[in-house]
Amino acid sequence: MPKVILSKISTKAPKNADKKSVVKKTAELATKIGKMSEMLWAEKKHSLLVILQGMDGSGKDGVAKSVFMACPALVIDAHAFKKPSEEEFAHDFLWRVHKNVPAKGQVKLFIRSHYEDILIQRVHQWIDDKKAASRLEAINNFEKLLVEDNETTILKFYLHLSHERQLEKLEERRIDPEKQWKFNPADFEESKLWDKYMRYYEAAINGSVIPWNIVPSDSRWYRNYIVAQKVYDTLKKLNPAFPLLLENGKNKT
Amino acid sequence: MPKVILSKISTKAPKNADKKSVVKKTAELATKIGKMSEMLWAEKKHSLLVILQGMDGSGKDGVAKSVFMACPALVIDAHAFKKPSEEEFAHDFLWRVHKNVPAKGQVKLFIRSHYEDILIQRVHQWIDDKKAASRLEAINNFEKLLVEDNETTILKFYLHLSHERQLEKLEERRIDPEKQWKFNPADFEESKLWDKYMRYYEAAINGSVIPWNIVPSDSRWYRNYIVAQKVYDTLKKLNPAFPLLLENGKNKT
Repeated sequence: MPKVILSKISTKAPKNADKKSVVKKTAELATKIGKMSEMLWAEKKHSLLVILQGMDGSGKDGVAKSVFMACPALVIDAHAFKKPSEEEFAHDFLWRVHKNVPAKGQVKLFIRSHYEDILIQRVHQWIDDKKAASRLEAINNFEKLLVEDNETTILKFYLHLSHERQLEKLEERRIDPEKQWKFNPADFEESKLWDKYMRYYEAAINGSVIPWNIVPSDSRWYRNYIVAQKVYDTLKKLNPAFPLLLENGKNKT
Repeated sequence: MPKVILSKISTKAPKNADKKSVVKKTAELATKIGKMSEMLWAEKKHSLLVILQGMDGSGKDGVAKSVFMACPALVIDAHAFKKPSEEEFAHDFLWRVHKNVPAKGQVKLFIRSHYEDILIQRVHQWIDDKKAASRLEAINNFEKLLVEDNETTILKFYLHLSHERQLEKLEERRIDPEKQWKFNPADFEESKLWDKYMRYYEAAINGSVIPWNIVPSDSRWYRNYIVAQKVYDTLKKLNPAFPLLLENGKNKT
């Protein structure tokens, strides 16, 4: 696979994309995703793990909301990874992650994930390069286990935002009364470390065995569409179906 | 490392071993283990994971009781792995194991473990050789993570019992009123699969990156002593110490 160089990938929607029709298509896809997630749940053969990573303001919560809005609460669960608790910190970095992986039939959203342990932790030099390499290897092994031992499909999205657009969105949070609850002055400080984040995001993306989807995220509507399309295509390939009763009264599967 | 061939390793205590002095030494070791486990807990630098595997009647519970009797309940925890629950079964085989690994400062006993997933499951052909190979690789990766990311020391004991001695012990369970609670007629059925178990135990032991201790277990007193000595030596190497106050009133570590 060719190396991903983030600075060479556009963060913008294509010029010819038509917002109105894209928004409509996204809503249609979300409805289908909801229906297929119910089948996945009923069938209990596979599970789907969706990893959402991206800088502050890139729209992880927004994607979680709009793409998966039609998935029943019983089927879907979103887990946002924050600063580790004292108990979590006393264990290996994958301990709290493994606890939260999807069971067969489930769709699980990770808002941030185990990748933070080789992103923010590297940016702030809480871990050295050797530890980061050992963690990356552990991540690849861990994801392999989920795929091979539990029929998990792992979908990774990097929400690719420009630095300029991030600053606009952080400013929105400061001003918009419906977004102020998300505002944290420390985010502006963290934003100054942009170049370092990009470097370690590239290292994480290029070192992953299971590939990443790089999603242009300066426009919310286009970002949501790209993710929805990929989730839909993936579910379609899994081809879930409601198990039917056989003549003897037993389930087919 | 030379390949382990279980049939070539004695299950008996050496002829010259003196039961009375061995029992006394074991009790002394257990006291020291208890003290050192408190230091491990206070220091919170390392964790110790003790894996006890062996056929029915080999004395996993007995070891857990006698070797660790002086460890405070706050420091030590024993987890017996049984048939997976429906929720556990809907996840990869290491999911329920990872949840139970020791935090820094803890001593954790696994009575049976993730190795059952390549033992009983192979004996009964619930998984094929390919799945077993993929699980063995996952086990080695998982144990590496615990060692590298959380300063965990993993001590593995195979309690090596002869088939004849097993049958005696199962019979004891049938007769002894204090042991009847452990009796399960199905154990005699499982015992008939002895040779298969030995074959897959050998495969597990020889495929493990972190080595196993093969403990002659026909005599309870000798078995307990060998385990106690190894646990003691391991804790001594970890060299835990109560963190002291410095002159500025802060802890040294």
